[in-house]
Amino acid sequence: MLDDKILNYFKKHEEGYVSGEDLSHELGISRAGVWKHIESLREEGYEIEAFPHLGYRMISIPDRLTEIELKWRLKTDIIARKIYSYKETSSTNDAAYHLAASGEKEGSVVIAESQTAGRGRMGRFWVSPKSKGAYFSVILRPDILPKEVSSITLFSALSVAKTIREMAGLAAFIKWPNDVFINNKKICGILTEMNAETDKINFVIIGIGININTKEELLPKGATSIMEARGAEISRVELVKGIFKNLDKYYRLFNSGQIAEIIREYKEFSNFLGKRIQVTYHDAKLEGYAIDVDKEGALILRMDSGLNERVLAGDVTMLR
Amino acid sequence: MLDDKILNYFKKHEEGYVSGEDLSHELGISRAGVWKHIESLREEGYEIEAFPHLGYRMISIPDRLTEIELKWRLKTDIIARKIYSYKETSSTNDAAYHLAASGEKEGSVVIAESQTAGRGRMGRFWVSPKSKGAYFSVILRPDILPKEVSSITLFSALSVAKTIREMAGLAAFIKWPNDVFINNKKICGILTEMNAETDKINFVIIGIGININTKEELLPKGATSIMEARGAEISRVELVKGIFKNLDKYYRLFNSGQIAEIIREYKEFSNFLGKRIQVTYHDAKLEGYAIDVDKEGALILRMDSGLNERVLAGDVTMLR
Repeated sequence: MLDDKILNYFKKHEEGYVSGEDLSHELGISRAGVWKHIESLREEGYEIEAFPHLGYRMISIPDRLTEIELKWRLKTDIIARKIYSYKETSSTNDAAYHLAASGEKEGSVVIAESQTAGRGRMGRFWVSPKSKGAYFSVILRPDILPKEVSSITLFSALSVAKTIREMAGLAAFIKWPNDVFINNKKICGILTEMNAETDKINFVIIGIGININTKEELLPKGATSIMEARGAEISRVELVKGIFKNLDKYYRLFNSGQIAEIIREYKEFSNFLGKRIQVTYHDAKLEGYAIDVDKEGALILRMDSGLNERVLAGDVTMLR
Repeated sequence: MLDDKILNYFKKHEEGYVSGEDLSHELGISRAGVWKHIESLREEGYEIEAFPHLGYRMISIPDRLTEIELKWRLKTDIIARKIYSYKETSSTNDAAYHLAASGEKEGSVVIAESQTAGRGRMGRFWVSPKSKGAYFSVILRPDILPKEVSSITLFSALSVAKTIREMAGLAAFIKWPNDVFINNKKICGILTEMNAETDKINFVIIGIGININTKEELLPKGATSIMEARGAEISRVELVKGIFKNLDKYYRLFNSGQIAEIIREYKEFSNFLGKRIQVTYHDAKLEGYAIDVDKEGALILRMDSGLNERVLAGDVTMLR
């Protein structure tokens, strides 16, 4: 708490120096107490120098996914109004689910540096190596029917892909419904879960796992990270803030009924349209050309018979 | 546990007498121990008489919603394979939800004599007076998409209405989507909740609250009970077993893809088809003639404009 107050004080005075005396006044603790807290912040990776007669100055901040860093100058309406940050958790989706079931407001985010039991779609495991990726879950309470939730999955993938293009300058693409790829390797998976009545969503959890500065050798085959694709690390804090901003923007579009606009942008980021693909769902397989994504988020597959098939669920494999 | 063993022993020998000596052997306890347990069963409402030289005989059982009574000679494939019975719980749906989230198998039932925080559709309260109704929740794990869950709601209402007709001889009707009525008064409400990914149901909870032998004055306005409609009490245990059997049957039909047959029977029990109705959903109101329920469970409304409207959610009010 006091550490956070000191950080906020530094952030408010980021151009100049912060005197130990002012800090001591502001926080109502002794000069020695101030020094102790500065030391503990240094241990967490904050580079704070002390200049005689001038005071302390923040030289650099660590790339840590804490509430205070993620919320600094973040302008969003709904997403990340509140952030629960953990060094490690079993699964951010599970943590967010529990919060939501206890009445947590929409927009709250659970974020962790690593997950011990990260989950992917269809009950799969999601590898979450420590301190180099970002694993977070967002609670939403949209006033929609369960069948309309697929658009949320689509704009979540769109938000991630768009942020990567904007901030890392990489050609990120979406594979239906919600995997994000760079150079045909997966860098992000999204797991959307919901709690609903037949005709009313209670809440939706969007779980996003993204490989940011992770070394490829720590990842499963077929996966890569932004750092590997780019050849250099990127600020995780800034990237996650960018995703928050895009999620906020598309959720606003979604709530104002502009699904067509969301689908239009989603299709621009797709890497599967016009391609020959195979879709597997349980034991069933379908093969054909992916020709469209309709307004309900279904994939339209042109079969060899010439007929179109609406695909609502499944895994897409690109055929050559 | 020992009480249950004694009950099972009585059930296995329901035609004849049970000697204290046999019971003592069977259970490995003393004759005095047998007597003590018989006493405790009597306190729970079991009428057990002792006949000199012949032994004990069960004269009557109490109408209590316990696992042992509900499972006695119940032949179902999936529903009620396991029953968690409580005298009181906050909400059987919440209890079932927690069980399901911890991996409970499908078919398990949570049942309670009363609920302190029973919930109805759309966050409404459900009045659950003690010991005269039945409040239970069934865990299902159907291999379907979230949008297909509405059929489960429909066959749940159908199972209740059909059981009431079969066992109480009353003309029970369904009001779309899932309220059961007798004489235009509500006797059963159903709350279907689910936990799902975008393309996979993890589990569904069907919560059923039914007014069986409840006095009308204990119920909200517009509600009645089977007893009030019939003029006599009915065995709650037998009625609930009847509902389990019908749920089991329709769930089997559902799993074998016979949705059309379910909808056909559902429509036979409807009291709204052909009637002029109003549907309200949030602030929106629609008025017209209810002409059909389609295979996705949507209500088809013939508007005064002559066009048909598909209604997916809302509350129906019958107009005169």
